[in-house]
Amino acid sequence: MAGNRRVILAKLPTGKLAASDFELEEAPMPQPGPGQLLLRTRILSLDPANRAWMQGATYRSKLEGGTVMAGLAVSEVLESRDPGFVAGDLVEADSGWQTYAVIDAAVAKKRPAVPQLTHLMSVYGTSPLTAHVGLFEIGDLKAGDTVVVTAAAGSVGTAVGQIARIAGARVVGIAGGPEKCRWLVEELGFDAAIDYKAGGLGAQLREAVPGGIDLLFDNVGGAVLDACIFAMNEHGRIICCGAVASYDGDKPTAGPRGVPGVLIVRRLSMRGFILYDHPEATERAMDDIRSWQADGRFRAIEDVLEGLEAAPAGLVGLLAGENRGKRMVRVS
Amino acid sequence: MAGNRRVILAKLPTGKLAASDFELEEAPMPQPGPGQLLLRTRILSLDPANRAWMQGATYRSKLEGGTVMAGLAVSEVLESRDPGFVAGDLVEADSGWQTYAVIDAAVAKKRPAVPQLTHLMSVYGTSPLTAHVGLFEIGDLKAGDTVVVTAAAGSVGTAVGQIARIAGARVVGIAGGPEKCRWLVEELGFDAAIDYKAGGLGAQLREAVPGGIDLLFDNVGGAVLDACIFAMNEHGRIICCGAVASYDGDKPTAGPRGVPGVLIVRRLSMRGFILYDHPEATERAMDDIRSWQADGRFRAIEDVLEGLEAAPAGLVGLLAGENRGKRMVRVS
Repeated sequence: MAGNRRVILAKLPTGKLAASDFELEEAPMPQPGPGQLLLRTRILSLDPANRAWMQGATYRSKLEGGTVMAGLAVSEVLESRDPGFVAGDLVEADSGWQTYAVIDAAVAKKRPAVPQLTHLMSVYGTSPLTAHVGLFEIGDLKAGDTVVVTAAAGSVGTAVGQIARIAGARVVGIAGGPEKCRWLVEELGFDAAIDYKAGGLGAQLREAVPGGIDLLFDNVGGAVLDACIFAMNEHGRIICCGAVASYDGDKPTAGPRGVPGVLIVRRLSMRGFILYDHPEATERAMDDIRSWQADGRFRAIEDVLEGLEAAPAGLVGLLAGENRGKRMVRVS
Repeated sequence: MAGNRRVILAKLPTGKLAASDFELEEAPMPQPGPGQLLLRTRILSLDPANRAWMQGATYRSKLEGGTVMAGLAVSEVLESRDPGFVAGDLVEADSGWQTYAVIDAAVAKKRPAVPQLTHLMSVYGTSPLTAHVGLFEIGDLKAGDTVVVTAAAGSVGTAVGQIARIAGARVVGIAGGPEKCRWLVEELGFDAAIDYKAGGLGAQLREAVPGGIDLLFDNVGGAVLDACIFAMNEHGRIICCGAVASYDGDKPTAGPRGVPGVLIVRRLSMRGFILYDHPEATERAMDDIRSWQADGRFRAIEDVLEGLEAAPAGLVGLLAGENRGKRMVRVS
């Protein structure tokens, strides 16, 4: 327990994020005050939202240059100055990209001890919960629906595909590159997959979903969303979960052409949501996913990088789509 | 009862619609067959949707050049060859821009005899019904909501404003030009009105709705919708009723920039709808509007042109926003 290694977001990026926008530094060990916890970071979550936080206020305030990079992590309590926690507890919090952190106990969420720590991200973490709540609570998923999911090979996408299949839907994924597409079908049981990088997305959609899309689970926005809207069935539902196409760069200059014309003619709904608004549905989601994982129907797809210093390039690579499943960093 | 005067859509327009895209002609009187009705057109409805029908299939097939222009009308039955109708009945149907028409009885909707025939369009017609169903059934309007309506001086917009006020909402209209805006506030009781032609729509919205928009009733799409999305409150609802900004010309090349990013961050919903999907809510709407009109709380805003030959320029002018309230043509 020497110093605290931490990654500073040196400056807010102007164009694409680069690993050089971050700096690694050594700082003194932080000391917890009353009502606070000293944490040792175990697993750090890398998420496209990390980049969105640099663009402006979202469900949290905008990040600032010159501060420790923000990020969700699972950590071990080393010292507790709050009666609700004891040393050894596992907690989840936005404690940032650092080996140790001091946080207010009020913002720490206790997590169970599980045989494999990474499962707190890949099975019991926000990605599969987001997939479940989005599909059932927001999207009103029904057996027999044709579901299309974008960024299908990502942490939310792989969960959406698996959960929708369990619920009796036909699932088509959209991902980048033939390898990922093959993997989605052969390994994860998607009914079909579309490579958006191959171009002609409209024609590919007509071939893969000739009966049209009932439920679109969109993680990307941009040109992919634009094409999907024109493939929706009447009374179709579009779940807006992410907009990764617009996170890494300047603000978008145009939205999908089908809004609002196609929404009206086909009586579509679009709805944006954030997991934290749905605590009760999240509890139900946790129960389902736990049982599906136990009986082998839900697979944890993990992409684990080693060491805090891997985080900057790991986030840049995530935004470029190099991951499959839930990307995280094992810090200690 | 000499011939049948009718307006032909000579060719589908390429850019903006012009009165010269239509031709007036005289044809023989049509003869009803079994199960058909011979109608005398009384009042013809002019609607932005007439122009949208020229762009592609909607809830009806695309219009074709060289045929009688389509349009909703209230007509009198002159001769019935169907047991459900007798001469003298008033019916509503898409019987087109002509002085006489033969239609299948199955597509005719009987309308009540009312003291003022134009009220079948302005009070009991699709515009106020669309406003009511959109606000309550789709938009879940509540007392205390801040409602913004676009194309506020039009047939749907004037109804939305009045109905939302009756329901206890604060209502701000967006319309073109200072005269219309003054009229909305002084004559129709809107709480405020914004002139989109004056520019700086974002700044005008911040001033007129400092607390943000809870419910947006959008009839136009395009740049106005784009600006409004950024003024929505968290969990706000956007009702997509029309896209008149994109009807008269080529297909739009871009949609609103806030889709999907702002939808997610502010947990917004957008939903397109068409009145005909909601027959039960339409019945309730009819009862409400009838009673509100009877007790003076709902004003029929009518813009009546005289004679079939006024229809082409009347539609072109409607698309340019020259009307206030429900534009129609008294044919006979």
